[in-house]
Amino acid sequence: MKQGLFITFEGPDGSGKTTISTLVTERLQAAGYRVSYTREPGGSQIAEQIREIILSPANKAMDARTEALLYAASRRQHLVDVILPGLEQGITVISDRFVDSSLAYQGYGRHIGEAEVMAINQFAIEGHMPDLTIFLNVDPQTGLARIQKNRTYLDRLDQEDLQFHEDVARGYQEIVRKYRDRMVILDASRSEEEVAADAYAVIRDLLDAQNQNR
Amino acid sequence: MKQGLFITFEGPDGSGKTTISTLVTERLQAAGYRVSYTREPGGSQIAEQIREIILSPANKAMDARTEALLYAASRRQHLVDVILPGLEQGITVISDRFVDSSLAYQGYGRHIGEAEVMAINQFAIEGHMPDLTIFLNVDPQTGLARIQKNRTYLDRLDQEDLQFHEDVARGYQEIVRKYRDRMVILDASRSEEEVAADAYAVIRDLLDAQNQNR
Repeated sequence: MKQGLFITFEGPDGSGKTTISTLVTERLQAAGYRVSYTREPGGSQIAEQIREIILSPANKAMDARTEALLYAASRRQHLVDVILPGLEQGITVISDRFVDSSLAYQGYGRHIGEAEVMAINQFAIEGHMPDLTIFLNVDPQTGLARIQKNRTYLDRLDQEDLQFHEDVARGYQEIVRKYRDRMVILDASRSEEEVAADAYAVIRDLLDAQNQNR
Repeated sequence: MKQGLFITFEGPDGSGKTTISTLVTERLQAAGYRVSYTREPGGSQIAEQIREIILSPANKAMDARTEALLYAASRRQHLVDVILPGLEQGITVISDRFVDSSLAYQGYGRHIGEAEVMAINQFAIEGHMPDLTIFLNVDPQTGLARIQKNRTYLDRLDQEDLQFHEDVARGYQEIVRKYRDRMVILDASRSEEEVAADAYAVIRDLLDAQNQNR
């Protein structure tokens, strides 16, 4: 059976990734495409335990390299438990965040460097890079304002200052340039409905071009 | 102030690492040397949380690469929280296990390969390799028989079969050969008292040669 396509959504906090990626998945499924949605650590019990350690506001003493290694560990287990089994069944898997998030947050936000963070992630993913990445582009001020307005709980990374989020945003711009062959950039300062419509069209056209089964 | 020496104890399960390294530390302290003892995840609260996930017998579905990344994460945090602060105060730090354990257990026992496991550990330790490693040499059958006799609780790795422990033992032989410049190999099939006396003498002579403050 033909391997499914692996599609990721990326972008700064407050870019609307979760809302838009779930909306797009539902519409693709309604149109008869074999698509599943996941979100790190998404349904992997071990990855979930790892993520709890990373995000706990009590773990303020966490070193940046510890954080990067924990994200890579969580990603590995999510890949093995959830993403690869879907792709092997020929299903298109849409993931809210993947490797690019670590390159931006740990590589640039934490200043470890993109190459070093990529190396431990290559250990984790063994070449399973996305076929397509939808990048939701929004400036960090707008993104931060959205999350501070909409969320009642802020995890350890949400609580970082504007400088951190600006470094992450700058990192994303580098990554989008570097991996442009698999990137589609959408202006996420627009309404979620407009962005979702664009993302839907991009993915539908790709699936149709690849003659994925409906 | 002069940086302290970093000394590790390594060897297969049941080689007596913990008993011998604590005994040696106590004797060095009694003789007036500035020595501290630690054991991964040793007193680092975040490293401890990570270690609980690794060793929980409930986490049978853990992928080998997830395990290797979690050990590297736990090691990183233990290094930053415990080992480096000791060394920077000029104290000799003795650690029960360090990087060599991952090379043997994940590199060889789990068949990921030594080079790949070393790469993620280099990310974690940033060049802080031990100045001296005491390798407690015991064949895997003897080691396993000791732990099955002495322990009432067996963690997820203790529960692995003899083949796993033989692969680990073979891995340790490779590592000891490769890093022979920092290795002292002791026959750990002897009584703990005999092995501890040898380990004590080796470390005492090194500290005296380095003119460490007493």
